[in-house]
Amino acid sequence: MNDIEKFISYLSRLPGLGPRSARRMALALIKKKDQLLTPLITSLEHIRDTIQSCEICNNLDEVSPCQICQSQSRDRSIICIVEDVSDLWALERTSIFKGQYHVLGGTLSALDGRGPETLKIPYLIQRIRENNIQEVILALNATIEGQTTSHYIMEHIKKTSVKVTQLAQGIPIGGELDYLDDGTLSAAFNARLSLEFS
Amino acid sequence: MNDIEKFISYLSRLPGLGPRSARRMALALIKKKDQLLTPLITSLEHIRDTIQSCEICNNLDEVSPCQICQSQSRDRSIICIVEDVSDLWALERTSIFKGQYHVLGGTLSALDGRGPETLKIPYLIQRIRENNIQEVILALNATIEGQTTSHYIMEHIKKTSVKVTQLAQGIPIGGELDYLDDGTLSAAFNARLSLEFS
Repeated sequence: MNDIEKFISYLSRLPGLGPRSARRMALALIKKKDQLLTPLITSLEHIRDTIQSCEICNNLDEVSPCQICQSQSRDRSIICIVEDVSDLWALERTSIFKGQYHVLGGTLSALDGRGPETLKIPYLIQRIRENNIQEVILALNATIEGQTTSHYIMEHIKKTSVKVTQLAQGIPIGGELDYLDDGTLSAAFNARLSLEFS
Repeated sequence: MNDIEKFISYLSRLPGLGPRSARRMALALIKKKDQLLTPLITSLEHIRDTIQSCEICNNLDEVSPCQICQSQSRDRSIICIVEDVSDLWALERTSIFKGQYHVLGGTLSALDGRGPETLKIPYLIQRIRENNIQEVILALNATIEGQTTSHYIMEHIKKTSVKVTQLAQGIPIGGELDYLDDGTLSAAFNARLSLEFS
């Protein structure tokens, strides 16, 4: 295996790249050393040297506490709990939420040995209790693991006066009934809303 | 735009990565600095410092002339002409060809200002004439530009005694007639072969 093959095989192990796209990318990088390869190295080095976990919410940022935790314009009485930084990014792209976050970094899983301590859930519960939080939004994935974790967190904060909400489940916008899985369709049916004549 | 957003926007400009896969890759790299990010930087630096164009065939390799041009076990009397290094890689993966290559680096295009000089076609013709080449295989893409370029090269070597061949056109293996474009189907029909009773 020569150097280029090693490079391609290395690239194809990165998430989001198959063998074909790894080859395309490798070739583009080699052909455009000055325009693509060198800036990529600089960018990667910068990211390696600056990005860290936020000490409060576990988000990734150049600073700790992160810009969201530091922001004066965001509501500090609402915490939205997500599994991963990618979920935080997804919510930020919608601009619908202007509170604080808490990134768990995974879900509870007995099988994979991830208990409440691993996810620092005791610290999260302490954070909720000590900061006069009014609402906790459970925005975990609608998977069995996500729902189990939501349930566990809810059990441990039910004695506080905090309001707990969960993202609505139903038909995605633009979704066609015929293509939906049975679980989503049943959930949407059970959670049906009354419409009023205008 | 913060550093992570800049990084993602940078990654998403690389060929083979859309915004979604760029986000996935960025997150994986940031989360696994030691296992993914640092080795990637090392690998990119190595590629930047070692890979060069082969002075004979224009292939990309650690050495020039490239390993294919240097190889004693490959047939030096056959040259296969391809548009791009990725086409050379595709042919090498099949292991069907054991001659030498010539990478044009593109096709003739009056619109984009690529003439025979830009593609160093005079050098290719000189290479064919001076090295006792027996066969030239035109393995350019089956596009109008590819075929125009094939035609141009053929015109300029027809006075030599070299045999010129072109990749067969027809139905791809596993291809279904119903899904084929008309051009391929017509080409396959016109190039139909006689079968013999065994």
